[in-house]
Amino acid sequence: MATRLPESEFDARLAEVRGRLADTDADAATFFGATSIEYLSGFHHIQTERPVVLAVTRDGMEITVPRLEVERVEPNPRIDAVHHYFDYPQGAPLRTAVEMLRGMGVDSVASDADGAPGVMGYEGPSLSEFVEVERQSWVDRMRWEKTDAEVDLVRESAKWANLAHRYLADYTEVGAHPVTVSQRATTEASRAMLDTLGERYAVRTRGSGPVHAGYISGSETALPHGHTPNERLSAGDVLVTGASANVDGYHSELERTMFVGEPSDEQVHYFELMVEAQDIAINALGPGQSIAGVDEAVHDYFVEQGIEDTAQHHVGHNIGLGGHEPPYIDRGWDDYDHVDEGDDLMAPGQIYTIEPGIYTDEYGYRHSDTIAITESGTEWLTYFPRDLESNVIR
Amino acid sequence: MATRLPESEFDARLAEVRGRLADTDADAATFFGATSIEYLSGFHHIQTERPVVLAVTRDGMEITVPRLEVERVEPNPRIDAVHHYFDYPQGAPLRTAVEMLRGMGVDSVASDADGAPGVMGYEGPSLSEFVEVERQSWVDRMRWEKTDAEVDLVRESAKWANLAHRYLADYTEVGAHPVTVSQRATTEASRAMLDTLGERYAVRTRGSGPVHAGYISGSETALPHGHTPNERLSAGDVLVTGASANVDGYHSELERTMFVGEPSDEQVHYFELMVEAQDIAINALGPGQSIAGVDEAVHDYFVEQGIEDTAQHHVGHNIGLGGHEPPYIDRGWDDYDHVDEGDDLMAPGQIYTIEPGIYTDEYGYRHSDTIAITESGTEWLTYFPRDLESNVIR
Repeated sequence: MATRLPESEFDARLAEVRGRLADTDADAATFFGATSIEYLSGFHHIQTERPVVLAVTRDGMEITVPRLEVERVEPNPRIDAVHHYFDYPQGAPLRTAVEMLRGMGVDSVASDADGAPGVMGYEGPSLSEFVEVERQSWVDRMRWEKTDAEVDLVRESAKWANLAHRYLADYTEVGAHPVTVSQRATTEASRAMLDTLGERYAVRTRGSGPVHAGYISGSETALPHGHTPNERLSAGDVLVTGASANVDGYHSELERTMFVGEPSDEQVHYFELMVEAQDIAINALGPGQSIAGVDEAVHDYFVEQGIEDTAQHHVGHNIGLGGHEPPYIDRGWDDYDHVDEGDDLMAPGQIYTIEPGIYTDEYGYRHSDTIAITESGTEWLTYFPRDLESNVIR
Repeated sequence: MATRLPESEFDARLAEVRGRLADTDADAATFFGATSIEYLSGFHHIQTERPVVLAVTRDGMEITVPRLEVERVEPNPRIDAVHHYFDYPQGAPLRTAVEMLRGMGVDSVASDADGAPGVMGYEGPSLSEFVEVERQSWVDRMRWEKTDAEVDLVRESAKWANLAHRYLADYTEVGAHPVTVSQRATTEASRAMLDTLGERYAVRTRGSGPVHAGYISGSETALPHGHTPNERLSAGDVLVTGASANVDGYHSELERTMFVGEPSDEQVHYFELMVEAQDIAINALGPGQSIAGVDEAVHDYFVEQGIEDTAQHHVGHNIGLGGHEPPYIDRGWDDYDHVDEGDDLMAPGQIYTIEPGIYTDEYGYRHSDTIAITESGTEWLTYFPRDLESNVIR
């Protein structure tokens, strides 16, 4: 049972960044993105208007944080020095970061951004006003292929997502409020995970979580990003569910199309087309297979069935520390300017959500499963039954 | 009871943007930020790797969205034309947006960003590769002062936050799991809000919400952004709570320091210092008052009490569509390069969280209240009791 990323993972990540740094003329690699900072250092924080800047040189790693993160980051064994400003804009965060860089002997950087992200109304100078900046997206790329230890965490996430999804199905009935069912499943699955893992649980959330489950219902399912309406469930309702769990920052994705009571012939028809499309996509997965090809295979099937107008999005995305990550299973992936040679093929360690959707004027139909690419094929990480009978609530 | 933003609000917002546009040489204002797009058009979406671009000219408003948002945006009465690409990267989103701009006769724009935000691994071209771009942050600035209708929504949010907070306090007891208490309060307050508002409820969330309440406990409270530990509550625990509700996209913030059982003399001491600091901050609020001055007043008090080392952040921030918004109550606000003349003083319509915190090596002490600046003074929007007796769970 894997519930925490092993410390040794960080050594390999840092070595990789330093290898890439050595191929540049820059003195350091700098990172403003919260997920990249967590990936390299293990220090995770909520990204706000307060900039955080991580600097990696050939032999050191230092960080600039707001005062309120100091106690959280200081015990981190990988970070050599913690610099802080008091708050935003007090202390001019970027000036503190530049002083850190000067102290490290850094005049030029390869950076994931030319300054802090403009979230929550943050405004501030570009880093290139102070040091020479070239751009890199090394960590974004490194995150494509997960190690075995990372796959273990996503696998553990899928277990708790499955429990939450079981609760969702069990608590669903005509007359129930979808928000209440969602929150009850969330609460009970979270509690089961916390009590099962005990001290092995890596504390990561505030108040809510670590498991989330819920659904959208009725006509809202016709929108891929629909909302949960303020309406009790009725016989004949279509549900599009979602469940996940946070396991030391890693996520899985489990979604099912379900029916409250007996589905109509038309509903069964679209459900079966959707499951077939998902099968086609899953059969196209594997190491060395074309990423775009998976989306093309589903598109071909939709054209063949005369339902290509019911598609509103591509087949899926990767998942890990982020809920959506590249590579994206998209017919345009091969030709995209930002996709390098060789990056058009699936590789072991990539973890895909497979979720082709069909959207009629009335309802949406979408399962999503989380599937890892292995050396020899694929591994299903999510496992709630996909068949019609298992997804009809009677 | 205000539960939806009146349609008329959008007319005023658009007129303001067009007024600002008229002062530039640009043909259109463009927006990539999800909150800015919602603020101007009423169309809200989850910001992902799929870019959305809103363009406002002197007499029109058009939008580029991914296919999956088409049905949500098409009914919007304020948007003249909806353009879409299929997905990311398929269809090259920015190219679709540029074609939209060409069709509108636009060769130069004043934009909130020079391209889509790099979230979820998005990579793409700058807008300035296609049209002339000058930067603006008009909507960020417009959002500082809320209209009466916006204040009404935050006031409504504070009501449901209060209910959730009451439940939090009621369900807290020795031996209870903090996650379970948090989720139970969340569920029951959400359900009460949904059933009370009925059809008047503006559907905004997926599965969870619209109310959220929770707390961090024990030693995690010593971190301003602490997490909820996997430990049942014990007598002597300090809690730092938080509750809010989403009312048509608007939020309030209610936080309390609470004690499980009788607090120690030291705990009472810090609690009282914290409440006094909050009183000092609140007394310094008002139209025409210095924003930085509020933070200075609290800092002076902390210095006077010899506890300035226990402060880890400034006094507060604005709140509305965003959980944190400028202006920030920060001693550095006056001097910040990005604060224009006059913007150093509080103005009617601004809504502040007032939350000076004290953090010892063991615990944190912080209340947060949401307070609007009015023409003549202030209005408390949150109202859960702040005194010690009301915040001890016996």
